[in-house]
Amino acid sequence: MAETIAWKAGYLQLLDQTLLPETIQFTDIYSIEDTFDAIRGLKVRGAPAIGITAGYGLYLGMKNAQPADRSAFFELLEKNIQYLSEARPTAVNLVWALRQMQSDLRASEETDVAKLLELLLNLALELHDDDRRRCEGIGKSGQELIADNSRILTHCNTGALATGGIGTALGVILYAHDTGKSVQVYANETRPVLQGARLTMWELNRAKVPAQLICDSMGGTLMQQKKVDMVILGADRIAADGSVANKIGTYNLAIMAKYHRIPFYVAAPLSTFDMNITRGEDIPIEYRNKDEIRRVFNKQLITVPDVDCWNPAFDVTPPDLVSAIITEKGLIRPPYTENIKEFFKS
Amino acid sequence: MAETIAWKAGYLQLLDQTLLPETIQFTDIYSIEDTFDAIRGLKVRGAPAIGITAGYGLYLGMKNAQPADRSAFFELLEKNIQYLSEARPTAVNLVWALRQMQSDLRASEETDVAKLLELLLNLALELHDDDRRRCEGIGKSGQELIADNSRILTHCNTGALATGGIGTALGVILYAHDTGKSVQVYANETRPVLQGARLTMWELNRAKVPAQLICDSMGGTLMQQKKVDMVILGADRIAADGSVANKIGTYNLAIMAKYHRIPFYVAAPLSTFDMNITRGEDIPIEYRNKDEIRRVFNKQLITVPDVDCWNPAFDVTPPDLVSAIITEKGLIRPPYTENIKEFFKS
Repeated sequence: MAETIAWKAGYLQLLDQTLLPETIQFTDIYSIEDTFDAIRGLKVRGAPAIGITAGYGLYLGMKNAQPADRSAFFELLEKNIQYLSEARPTAVNLVWALRQMQSDLRASEETDVAKLLELLLNLALELHDDDRRRCEGIGKSGQELIADNSRILTHCNTGALATGGIGTALGVILYAHDTGKSVQVYANETRPVLQGARLTMWELNRAKVPAQLICDSMGGTLMQQKKVDMVILGADRIAADGSVANKIGTYNLAIMAKYHRIPFYVAAPLSTFDMNITRGEDIPIEYRNKDEIRRVFNKQLITVPDVDCWNPAFDVTPPDLVSAIITEKGLIRPPYTENIKEFFKS
Repeated sequence: MAETIAWKAGYLQLLDQTLLPETIQFTDIYSIEDTFDAIRGLKVRGAPAIGITAGYGLYLGMKNAQPADRSAFFELLEKNIQYLSEARPTAVNLVWALRQMQSDLRASEETDVAKLLELLLNLALELHDDDRRRCEGIGKSGQELIADNSRILTHCNTGALATGGIGTALGVILYAHDTGKSVQVYANETRPVLQGARLTMWELNRAKVPAQLICDSMGGTLMQQKKVDMVILGADRIAADGSVANKIGTYNLAIMAKYHRIPFYVAAPLSTFDMNITRGEDIPIEYRNKDEIRRVFNKQLITVPDVDCWNPAFDVTPPDLVSAIITEKGLIRPPYTENIKEFFKS
């Protein structure tokens, strides 16, 4: 498995995902600003992975600043959390992770700043380790949905590169493969940033899972020709009503799956749920630089220079198009508002 | 308007569309083999344009061979028609054009080969000119569907580059713009060959029509956000039941338009109808080289080398997803089997 995020003594090492699959290169991060830039610039991406990265970044920011006392510590902590939260507005795991750490730090009575910093680093390490277990749990939960010889269509990248473990949606697929089921994967290339072509195909290739790459325009025809048994993909934020914000192209697939009566599954850890948002339309959507569309890899120009583009990074799929949500604690089925509430109670 | 196909004294000049929009370069064609390669290699594409090109190519093949007599002429003509028909199997206009010419030649009692060649060239020139009028007719027919301030989503390229005139679907849009309607276009980039990004945006830019480029994964979200009033696109072959074979991605859009109750229009000349095929599933679909997906512009690699891909160049949209077909003789509405039959009678 690729070591996407590694904490080294005193700094964070990230596998630079903007260079994959051509080049395997690591980037060393020593500051909160570099963390912000790495997240914004997609060197690390995937909702769980950016949560983990932000945790380490928060620690780096606090360690470098060395606040004078507990009060200064928490003042700066709040500022830094707000700063990092703006790196990617749609994925909620980042905010969830940082707020969780803030709350755990507050709960400690510690006044020694060095001790607070030590606690913060441990929380970041725990978060990372925790995600490994969550992925494992999601992989296990999903197995009841995957019969032997399943043909699965997925979108974007939701594997080891996107998480601290085996992945979410791709984790379910890899878990099935590793436990001896025969699975066949179709990966949407996922324009504009091509996470499917660059990252998912790379991971599937390394894991020796039979896989075919398709363009995002081909999913409907694949379903029409009865070549797909199900769609499984990830989520960047799930509202309390079961609305799913995920990589642009997800909503297209959900509509096509509905039309062809093919199950449409979303795999995500519970940290992806935002119980403060009750309707999908209230999830903030990140719009990104138009050059992502105009150029491939920020290099090859594919259109007339300077044409106008519309580039939402995410879309929102309404709950009635989602067959089930696969979490580390099991499956959530419709009706979502009730069942998600129950899930968070237990 | 770009002169996509031009007959020069003794040879055919094509605007090489594989190099657009970066480079405007013409390629001179002197033989039927070069015609075949230009069509197969997408130097010229778009159902009407390849029909016109094949017409000139057929002439070049016959002229170069100089058959001895009328019988040898028709024997070689048949062989050459079959050869050219294999260049792109889905678009029917090519076969339609060549068979039309063959039938007109047969109808002449001419035995002088030089005269037959002269007649063949005239038929090719007429075909070209005829397409100009058909496009104009389609543009006019479509106007009753386009209100002022329409926001239109289109796919692939169906403009001057794809035809011998102003285009089919893009012709309807340009006609609206030229006659003073305010229109706004969203162009699907149309992976893998990017005809939308490269060709449609280039044409819209030259015509000063307000346009935004989107990825093929974004259409659903555009509709969900109520930013589109209709979809208009072209066709490569329409079966007698109204099934539409068109560039891969068309079927996705048709399903999404249906889901959002947005009209879905197909613009095509009557030469696109194949009355010999009664069901969509019988239309032959061209599968193209996997490197079209693996690489952008046959250059930039976007995935792991040699990964498997699935690359259908076209898809088939069933008639119940099509709101109307815009032809040079007016609109055809459902029920298609009856109404198309009526249309061809009159």
